[in-house]
Amino acid sequence: MARAVVLLSGGLDSATCLAWARREGFECTTLAVDYGQRHRIELEAARRVAAALGSRDHREVAIDLRAIGGSALTDSIPVPRGRSASSMANGIPITYVPARNTVFLALALGLAETLGATDLVAGMNAIDYSGYPDCRPEFLDAFEGLAALATRAGVEGARFRVHAPLMKLDKAAIVRLGASLGVDYALTHSCYDPAPDGTACGACDACLLRRKGFHEAGIPDPTHYSA
Amino acid sequence: MARAVVLLSGGLDSATCLAWARREGFECTTLAVDYGQRHRIELEAARRVAAALGSRDHREVAIDLRAIGGSALTDSIPVPRGRSASSMANGIPITYVPARNTVFLALALGLAETLGATDLVAGMNAIDYSGYPDCRPEFLDAFEGLAALATRAGVEGARFRVHAPLMKLDKAAIVRLGASLGVDYALTHSCYDPAPDGTACGACDACLLRRKGFHEAGIPDPTHYSA
Repeated sequence: MARAVVLLSGGLDSATCLAWARREGFECTTLAVDYGQRHRIELEAARRVAAALGSRDHREVAIDLRAIGGSALTDSIPVPRGRSASSMANGIPITYVPARNTVFLALALGLAETLGATDLVAGMNAIDYSGYPDCRPEFLDAFEGLAALATRAGVEGARFRVHAPLMKLDKAAIVRLGASLGVDYALTHSCYDPAPDGTACGACDACLLRRKGFHEAGIPDPTHYSA
Repeated sequence: MARAVVLLSGGLDSATCLAWARREGFECTTLAVDYGQRHRIELEAARRVAAALGSRDHREVAIDLRAIGGSALTDSIPVPRGRSASSMANGIPITYVPARNTVFLALALGLAETLGATDLVAGMNAIDYSGYPDCRPEFLDAFEGLAALATRAGVEGARFRVHAPLMKLDKAAIVRLGASLGVDYALTHSCYDPAPDGTACGACDACLLRRKGFHEAGIPDPTHYSA
């Protein structure tokens, strides 16, 4: 069975990716990155999701991106709340973490090389996150090219693939895909700015997109929101 | 003055890079990565070198690559000692850390973006480290292409450059360059497997290359070796 490294944040999207990769027949090693995010509770969600969806081996890499800063997710910048869909669609949001997906994919690549895997799976999405440059297909194509040059396996002829099965799906389609694959979304966490008890705020971009996704999919949202 | 992010390991090569970048007129922010390396003493060397060579701002990012493993520098695999130059030249050594330079450059890219810089400086070298895939010019070219797609600045038209001033220099030429720029190599650390007091082993690949470099440059080696 081909082995894949799946980036698993603990959110709705990456849980769906893991279910997709399992359905595709990959034996999955999941990788969560503890990058100093405000919403650290998602790391616990990642562990729950990995166990529930049959990750063979769940790893956590700690990296303190606070030393780099520049984002509301890692710096002392407030997380925006209550933005409209049109305001979210305009420009790159302050929750963008500089070079985050480059760093995360590089870590997944290193792990893949250690495991002898050449398939990476990640939840990049060009529809709901059109403002994040490192969620675009052309970024992933460039990363595949880099991976071939960056690694021992690449030098020896391996061809790395970055699978982004959610790239062209809106949130409702993602929810429908995950539900059809048996994902229990109650295990996942999306909120950027949760209450200390883990309750989702209901108002940040991640909560708004999530709520809208369940609503449009016509599937009950199992999330506990404070607002 | 243009700003640059310089990857600074604390070794001979990256110290020379910092001196080169200063000579080129860059205002430099230095970045050291604490990646769980055996030779953690190099992080102290990086702080000394940053101060001595006029880094404007020295940052350290901690990332635990042990969760990925696969290298003698981060895993419980012995560091080779006493290898001949020809054996070093053959194949990729076990001290290769999977995707290390991809991860490091991604971090430098994130920091550059936060600072509004588009110049990265790193000590990759294709002569003495011909066995490391991520030390080749084609890797750096691919990374520049990726950086343009990965970042907000790139989307807005910025062109990132990765300067690798040591790419085509052998160790003796690097030592001569650094000496001409006033680098105090006594501040630097190269050994992969130092004694607890920081003394260089004198026998790992890094020590052997360093000794040979000073010898061939005709410049006294200030390093204390145990062997």
